[in-house]
Amino acid sequence: MRDMIAETVCVGTEILLGNIVNTNAAYLAGEYAKLGLLSYAQTVVGDNEERIMETVRTALTRSDLVVISGGLGPTQDDITKETVARLLGREMRLDEVSRKRIEAFFDKRGRKMTENNLRQAMIPLGARVLDNDNGTAPGILIELTPEESARFQKEKRGLQAVVLLPGPPEELTEMWEQKVVPYLQQRTGDVIYSAMVKVCGRSESEVAEILDDLIRQSGDVTVAPYAKTGEVHMRVTARAEDEKSAKKLVKPVVKEIKTRLGDSVYTTHEETTLEKAVVDLLLANGLTVTTVESCTGGLIAGRLINVQGVSEVYKSGFVTYSNKAKRKLAGVKKKTLDKYGAVSEQTAREMVNGATLFNRADVGVSVTGIAGPDGGTEEKPVGLVYIAVSVCGVVTVREYHFSGNRAKIRSHTVAAALDQMRRCILKYYSKLTFGKEE
Amino acid sequence: MRDMIAETVCVGTEILLGNIVNTNAAYLAGEYAKLGLLSYAQTVVGDNEERIMETVRTALTRSDLVVISGGLGPTQDDITKETVARLLGREMRLDEVSRKRIEAFFDKRGRKMTENNLRQAMIPLGARVLDNDNGTAPGILIELTPEESARFQKEKRGLQAVVLLPGPPEELTEMWEQKVVPYLQQRTGDVIYSAMVKVCGRSESEVAEILDDLIRQSGDVTVAPYAKTGEVHMRVTARAEDEKSAKKLVKPVVKEIKTRLGDSVYTTHEETTLEKAVVDLLLANGLTVTTVESCTGGLIAGRLINVQGVSEVYKSGFVTYSNKAKRKLAGVKKKTLDKYGAVSEQTAREMVNGATLFNRADVGVSVTGIAGPDGGTEEKPVGLVYIAVSVCGVVTVREYHFSGNRAKIRSHTVAAALDQMRRCILKYYSKLTFGKEE
Repeated sequence: MRDMIAETVCVGTEILLGNIVNTNAAYLAGEYAKLGLLSYAQTVVGDNEERIMETVRTALTRSDLVVISGGLGPTQDDITKETVARLLGREMRLDEVSRKRIEAFFDKRGRKMTENNLRQAMIPLGARVLDNDNGTAPGILIELTPEESARFQKEKRGLQAVVLLPGPPEELTEMWEQKVVPYLQQRTGDVIYSAMVKVCGRSESEVAEILDDLIRQSGDVTVAPYAKTGEVHMRVTARAEDEKSAKKLVKPVVKEIKTRLGDSVYTTHEETTLEKAVVDLLLANGLTVTTVESCTGGLIAGRLINVQGVSEVYKSGFVTYSNKAKRKLAGVKKKTLDKYGAVSEQTAREMVNGATLFNRADVGVSVTGIAGPDGGTEEKPVGLVYIAVSVCGVVTVREYHFSGNRAKIRSHTVAAALDQMRRCILKYYSKLTFGKEE
Repeated sequence: MRDMIAETVCVGTEILLGNIVNTNAAYLAGEYAKLGLLSYAQTVVGDNEERIMETVRTALTRSDLVVISGGLGPTQDDITKETVARLLGREMRLDEVSRKRIEAFFDKRGRKMTENNLRQAMIPLGARVLDNDNGTAPGILIELTPEESARFQKEKRGLQAVVLLPGPPEELTEMWEQKVVPYLQQRTGDVIYSAMVKVCGRSESEVAEILDDLIRQSGDVTVAPYAKTGEVHMRVTARAEDEKSAKKLVKPVVKEIKTRLGDSVYTTHEETTLEKAVVDLLLANGLTVTTVESCTGGLIAGRLINVQGVSEVYKSGFVTYSNKAKRKLAGVKKKTLDKYGAVSEQTAREMVNGATLFNRADVGVSVTGIAGPDGGTEEKPVGLVYIAVSVCGVVTVREYHFSGNRAKIRSHTVAAALDQMRRCILKYYSKLTFGKEE
């Protein structure tokens, strides 16, 4: 099948004012990649008829699927729908189903629907309505007639479609997943299957080098790396006639990545975060965990407690920012602090031992470091961090050197601590909780 | 002076793949607003000569300042500079100063400069070089000649300029601030002065209603609200012939906002975050602080410890996720937990009392709530949170109802806790530490 080209147009003055970061464009771009669609451009325009029209016109000259977000609301500023209808020369009509849905939305909240909101039920002739389960503005999908397409495209490329989605991210993402993806899959006939391989404890360039041939190969399977703080995510995508064939293409590539990267791969599940991988490993092995943090000051605990159901494994932890707190709460010896300093292997070790003892936890993690911008010396520069992990009394301490500002050093430390916990637990316990295939 | 129109073009396949969120575009949009420049469009294109050329050509037909980010690196994919030079019909020449700077950059790191990197020192004829203090790729500023402009613009609008900035955000922002902003200020002759007013504990719609007339007014002073989690930031901007006149326009508007919003205004300083406002208040009054967190699990401590110099006020804190931890670490009575439950006003109160006693802190904050998605009941639904703040033994407990997913409920809780701390300290201590004018 010919490659389909998708293009995003975001309508919203608030993006042009720098008021919000354009996460919708990034989300849709990732979705195109996942579905194997090509994409060459993204545009942001304000709520201005002339500019919206010009931008959508340009997009239609070069793309098969034009996804427009924003400007479907009830106010006078919201003109996306009318503008697109005018560009295509289609009339607007009242959609009875949408009208009833909007009325019901207001009824449920005990509010009265205003005339303005009725505008949201107006739909271009011949368009499909995409019901909005999270708000009042319905989405719209318009397949262009061959005559309409011919006005934009010099050479005939095939079926073109314009999709209008509401601007609020939670409404946009759900409508995309529930309504647009099934349409695209049905329309292309092909099935796209993709798997995610998530890696931690390796740099992006290291991963890119190890997987160079896989990333560069062009064919039925593509491998695309995405860098995150302390992590690299790899999306493996294949397109085939049916799901079974697509999966069959993806599987050996995922296996090869896992073979090459070993236990740096922490999951092959889309929704599993690094903290969830750690919590799952603790749960699977019946282990409890505690934290005692200095420069990260609660952020490791904060990440672990992101995970739903963490109460089974996480009971309590300490933030010990001062030397006194390290002594009093974690039982670090005065002699140790005097001789080696607060930022030292020895202090990290005593912190984790004290915290696991006091909190009666099987696993513990301690962090002590210099996040800066002050406090660095020649011998102990800003970015020096010691992380100790105890697994049932066996303590592993590692020294790290991070760079960047205070916030960056702290977030890299949190990722490194989670990775170190993972590796230490894996060393002594089950390896069976990661990378399980469906 | 005529309004200047600015437009951003981001070059980068990684943005089109959804690999990264386009923070450069959002940063530049905010900067335009700050400088009083208008902006009607943003575009993202991949590293493709034809598409870059077409996009920049379109931008030059409608904008006075075109800022292009990305594609200045040493690889074959990096073609922004050559493409723009070709579009303008300008030759490339080697810039000796840039060559030496790039060589020095490599020398300093003990690495040898490759031929590729020399490409970064090639500059379009007649362009100004913007030195890069954080990387190897210099930025470029080209003022178009009247003849060049005439090729793009139907009607003569005045001086046009194209600015090329490196893609890495830390390089882009510093070059923008250090090199481009002074150029723009000098060029327009006008001075733009803006002040930031940051508000917490009020919703965006509440703030918009209270300041409706100020936000709607069009004139020499503009007020633009930006919503953040639990906060609203307002930028007040004025343009005038000199800084003194611009400040004179801004000052009464800032004062009026402060009068209307009272102590919901936590700062009028650009760099001051909510956690810094709290830490400053503690420092100014010689108070120490502790935290004891259940559903936020360390995130409040994590925010406070963001602040450089926090060691004067923050010594230690607890994460008490289980009931047992609430009893053992914070001294909550078993009777209290049995009778009122872990998520209750009474438990929050005992948590904060126990934590301030044990940690010998003047101020304490405790949080207990249901972040979901499980654990909610009819009586105590997901999103119910109790926050207690103790200031030298005087405890204030507040009940909150947040909505959204687990992450959203937790981040709103953190913002609310910081705001409640601020208000409680202000109630008993100095009000003189916020909103001070220079």
